[in-house]
Amino acid sequence: MSGKLYALSTGPGAADLITVRGARLLGQLDVLYAPAGRKGGDSLALSIVREYLGEQTEVRCCHFPMSADSAEKEAVWNDVATAMNADVQAGKQVGFITLGDAMLFSTWVFLLQRLPHPELLEIVPGVTSFAAIAARTQMPLAMEQQSLGVISCTAPETDIRQALHHHDSLVLMKVYGRFGRIKALLMEAGLLDCALMMAEATLPGEQCWRQLGEVSDDQPLPYFSTILVNKGVKG
Amino acid sequence: MSGKLYALSTGPGAADLITVRGARLLGQLDVLYAPAGRKGGDSLALSIVREYLGEQTEVRCCHFPMSADSAEKEAVWNDVATAMNADVQAGKQVGFITLGDAMLFSTWVFLLQRLPHPELLEIVPGVTSFAAIAARTQMPLAMEQQSLGVISCTAPETDIRQALHHHDSLVLMKVYGRFGRIKALLMEAGLLDCALMMAEATLPGEQCWRQLGEVSDDQPLPYFSTILVNKGVKG
Repeated sequence: MSGKLYALSTGPGAADLITVRGARLLGQLDVLYAPAGRKGGDSLALSIVREYLGEQTEVRCCHFPMSADSAEKEAVWNDVATAMNADVQAGKQVGFITLGDAMLFSTWVFLLQRLPHPELLEIVPGVTSFAAIAARTQMPLAMEQQSLGVISCTAPETDIRQALHHHDSLVLMKVYGRFGRIKALLMEAGLLDCALMMAEATLPGEQCWRQLGEVSDDQPLPYFSTILVNKGVKG
Repeated sequence: MSGKLYALSTGPGAADLITVRGARLLGQLDVLYAPAGRKGGDSLALSIVREYLGEQTEVRCCHFPMSADSAEKEAVWNDVATAMNADVQAGKQVGFITLGDAMLFSTWVFLLQRLPHPELLEIVPGVTSFAAIAARTQMPLAMEQQSLGVISCTAPETDIRQALHHHDSLVLMKVYGRFGRIKALLMEAGLLDCALMMAEATLPGEQCWRQLGEVSDDQPLPYFSTILVNKGVKG
């Protein structure tokens, strides 16, 4: 059997929201690369998929720095991509797990761009956090001719304001540390009543706020916090 | 055991791209409602999930008319919602399957709005077609501060033009019957070289076009055809 690399999307957090294909492939891996938030820290992605791993699977946690130093980040991406490629060339079945969906706001894409053999790669898509939030809160994302904008709260304020104006519904990712600013933009656009916020969707620590006008600007939030806006509904 | 309704997202098409939760729940249903494209016709959603169904499950195909007659459509939505609710009230485990993700461009939302007991309902999210297309083509959707627009090609031309201008990447759903018009808009925006089109992603009939400039305006397309645009890559 020749070596292959699988980029495996874990989905939003609950272990059983991974795909059947992802779960099966996890059981067949020789090596699994798992991103960890802090050096030596736990990997949330690993905790999600641990139940599906085979006994033969060697797990390698890798730490991707959050720093603004792009040379430091690029060095890590290069190292991890090189290591994964070497394992594939050695004939191994190699996995890399990634939260949510691999192709949307994921470090995985930086690794993808560094891998020399696209033909030895399979990317397994996953359920995005916002699909899970829509399901949990029973708030639709978009219907018929409506349009959906998916933006990061790290984007410039003018871009966020513009997206709030143009779309019927919106997903605002990466709210962490920016809630006050986003709340002000929602208020300015008259959209506070058709927005809701969810943190750690489908995980044990899941929290939901439906009256954003009553949430304090300095409300402590978990890292994974997302706002949904749907102009057609009241939150 | 009290009755419950599960809205089960099938994912993009391949049977093993449903979630583990969706697959498990399908095995426990008393009744499954499956949308069919034509009256008496096959249900694509049903063909995707058939391998997971329990022997006890009674399958009811329901036909949702495509007609512009909204009274006709609303009558069908009312009938199906009423029937599902009656089954739940009778203590049954009831499923409704929906292609892609239940909360994004799905008929399911029209049923959701007609169901009187949200507490007896669980929506199971799924992999969207565009996440599957990104995975199959290895084309990223969005990264870091980028924004993603998800729009329907049935939207007004000015809205599509605006979305092409504002977003770093775009998903253009429902291309069927509109390819020539969309191709012209992509050309006008200088985006033909960073777009690709996929039909029936992850299904046996999957097709991909990477040079949209060379595709004829009247190229026959399957019903499920989607264009991805990413301004950061060459298609």
